[in-house]
Amino acid sequence: MLLADTIKDTLSNQLSPGAVLSEPEALHKYCSDASGLHFIPELVVRAQNTEDIQTLLRLANAYGFPVTPRGGGSGLAGACLAHQGGVVLSLEDLNRIRLIDHENFLMEAEAGVISQKVREVAWEAGMFYPPDPAGMDLSTIGGNAATDAGGPACVKYGTTRDYILGLEAVLPNGECVRTGVRTRKGVVGYDLTNLLVGSEGTLAVITALLLKLLPKPAAVQTLLCAFPSVTCAMENVATIMQAGHLPCAIEVLDHRCLALVGELLPFALPAGKPSLLILELDGPATAIAEEMETIRKLMLAHGTIDTLPATNSSQRQKIWEVRRQVSLRIHDYAALYLSEDVTVPISAIAPLVNALPDYEKRYQLEIFAFGHAGDGNIHLNITTQDVGLADRAHAGVRALLALVLDLGGTISGEHGIGIAKKPYIAMELPEPMLALQRSIKEFFDPNKILNPGKIFP
Amino acid sequence: MLLADTIKDTLSNQLSPGAVLSEPEALHKYCSDASGLHFIPELVVRAQNTEDIQTLLRLANAYGFPVTPRGGGSGLAGACLAHQGGVVLSLEDLNRIRLIDHENFLMEAEAGVISQKVREVAWEAGMFYPPDPAGMDLSTIGGNAATDAGGPACVKYGTTRDYILGLEAVLPNGECVRTGVRTRKGVVGYDLTNLLVGSEGTLAVITALLLKLLPKPAAVQTLLCAFPSVTCAMENVATIMQAGHLPCAIEVLDHRCLALVGELLPFALPAGKPSLLILELDGPATAIAEEMETIRKLMLAHGTIDTLPATNSSQRQKIWEVRRQVSLRIHDYAALYLSEDVTVPISAIAPLVNALPDYEKRYQLEIFAFGHAGDGNIHLNITTQDVGLADRAHAGVRALLALVLDLGGTISGEHGIGIAKKPYIAMELPEPMLALQRSIKEFFDPNKILNPGKIFP
Repeated sequence: MLLADTIKDTLSNQLSPGAVLSEPEALHKYCSDASGLHFIPELVVRAQNTEDIQTLLRLANAYGFPVTPRGGGSGLAGACLAHQGGVVLSLEDLNRIRLIDHENFLMEAEAGVISQKVREVAWEAGMFYPPDPAGMDLSTIGGNAATDAGGPACVKYGTTRDYILGLEAVLPNGECVRTGVRTRKGVVGYDLTNLLVGSEGTLAVITALLLKLLPKPAAVQTLLCAFPSVTCAMENVATIMQAGHLPCAIEVLDHRCLALVGELLPFALPAGKPSLLILELDGPATAIAEEMETIRKLMLAHGTIDTLPATNSSQRQKIWEVRRQVSLRIHDYAALYLSEDVTVPISAIAPLVNALPDYEKRYQLEIFAFGHAGDGNIHLNITTQDVGLADRAHAGVRALLALVLDLGGTISGEHGIGIAKKPYIAMELPEPMLALQRSIKEFFDPNKILNPGKIFP
Repeated sequence: MLLADTIKDTLSNQLSPGAVLSEPEALHKYCSDASGLHFIPELVVRAQNTEDIQTLLRLANAYGFPVTPRGGGSGLAGACLAHQGGVVLSLEDLNRIRLIDHENFLMEAEAGVISQKVREVAWEAGMFYPPDPAGMDLSTIGGNAATDAGGPACVKYGTTRDYILGLEAVLPNGECVRTGVRTRKGVVGYDLTNLLVGSEGTLAVITALLLKLLPKPAAVQTLLCAFPSVTCAMENVATIMQAGHLPCAIEVLDHRCLALVGELLPFALPAGKPSLLILELDGPATAIAEEMETIRKLMLAHGTIDTLPATNSSQRQKIWEVRRQVSLRIHDYAALYLSEDVTVPISAIAPLVNALPDYEKRYQLEIFAFGHAGDGNIHLNITTQDVGLADRAHAGVRALLALVLDLGGTISGEHGIGIAKKPYIAMELPEPMLALQRSIKEFFDPNKILNPGKIFP
């Protein structure tokens, strides 16, 4: 126990009324995320305003207790869990949209706004916020920034980072700063915005974001392509990109995933063990209709066994619902489930999936491959039905990550390191780089109070 | 003199043969950039490899002399000038393209490669590197990264930053690091790539860049629109953007600029004092032809007095040649010339240019407005024919920058701070933010040897 009762009382006295939660049920609500890890915090602070966060961090420095910021709790790496005890700082009540500016395509949102709401508010105001991480009905925009969340639209539109013009953030010493600009360009001083984005709440607590929005695309069109094998599907990702197309989604589902969710699709799948690509184009209606037909012919010339166009928006919605179901179904299906989001160069996608059966055999695993094929970000769900084989599964993960790095890839494309991937980070970053990054953490947080023990082993 | 002869001898002995230049003519070659400032360095080192840079920086720490990195010397803020003496470190001989990868749309280029060559090599390999800063025939890709260079294509494609996946860089302590990934996504550790980009050579010496390339756009189309006033032209920038169009260039030339370069255009301009928008769309030929016609009609309905389509590539080339001539012609025309690259939100462009005549009168100046209207990055060239009025001109600049900040803008969209804009940075960044940024500089460079005295007053 790091938090003496006197500290708890001090917090209750100095923070907004109702901000401090200490009942067991409340603590339990904040003990997990989507990583499968569990750590009960000693105290939860639901910040009611920026000053609460400043006060909390000042007290944390004074008394030496850890503070772990938390958005929607949908992260996959345990970054928002209080694994060293202390306070979970929930941003969920900082949930105002401060500004929506149609003239300048801007939104200012507080960190606790649910990501889907950001998209909806933009859309209703006639604008487009592209990032679409899978858990966007749960995740907050601040959490998306802290992990630089991706999603299917990344392949064309980039990640959360690409839509953040500036941040309001509280530094570990309690100081509130504003980074960035309100304009499309700006080179005055160092780029602290991008340093804080993706830092998983270890360098500052993001409290508000100035977001760049786009004009709405006029239309969107969806095509499913079924391939005889996942290798053939993956080879065709390169075929599409090299022909100069830039779809706003190129998602893959391998035959294992389709065995779990295929019957939910609004189409009959071809016989055998097909794999699917979900292709989507957005833009002017006529132009994308022509381009999609070009892509369809290209796919038919390169081994597609069937193409299934979504002809209305309810089919399209259904397809994405099925896509989102994949993780949940695997979770239900497997006794032990390790989720990796490796990313490889486009040319290495096919070699990567080709290698999977060998790893399955060697480590007695079932590996599900799906996700954002268009940017090489393949979600590998490594499973076994025998929880006694956890060590073997972890060894399989390590071997697969080594392969990914050999192929020029990275061990995480969008989930981050948190706690779950800490054992592997040194496989990717050499010790001098880890030392430099650790020293940046120390520079920002000399007393190690903000989300300590994350990212770096 | 910071460099004793013994240090010069040590450098000559330890660096590659021919790397050290000390003849007055050689030193003179490296004394200026496009800012109009001049500082003769004590010594020039033309690094022949990364080890030269590591050795130089280690000696700089040991003996305490400044090292100022320099690319093509085309910067507008004096960031590459040795204003505190010591060594200018030229990257011009690190000019190999290390990798061009069509499968993965990647290029690895050393820092000294001329930016235009990057574009050309990509194009010849069937790919597209979008950033197009005005001086790209002189500037290096490393210099572009150090200043996060922009250009007309920014409005659609973003700045240099958006095309850098990773960097090779030498830290002030002489350590060589690699940042970033070879993939389209990556969230392993802190984003040091973006921290170094735009840091104007004060945090590290960038030695090589891993660049993200795009598929080539199928076609490009150009339209000039002449407006009765610069205000009307600027109002129409918002009209175009709000109708959901995203041109790959929206450049403006006001009537003062057209008085200097108008006769070079391959069209007769309407009578009076017109201002011009140069609009460009890229993408599939049919789609952009239709979209351009939509825009043309929109412009005619909103005050355009004439639209002049470039019907062939030689006309298009001519238009861009004229656009590039603007700065040079103003330079020739004016006795005193101060170049600002303020950026404001789209809705503030018209109010900004509206205010200019008042500032011209109040400070007895002629102000030329041109540049990247589509992202609000208006180049204001503040001139007078009376060099005795320099103080008044600087006062005018300060007053204009205050207006820009009031309008929600930034004092520099793409040129950076260097030496030239140091007197103004505190107008934009509050003291606590300046203190934080200064301390980051000290963290990276405790002995203040790498490009000291830049950016921060």
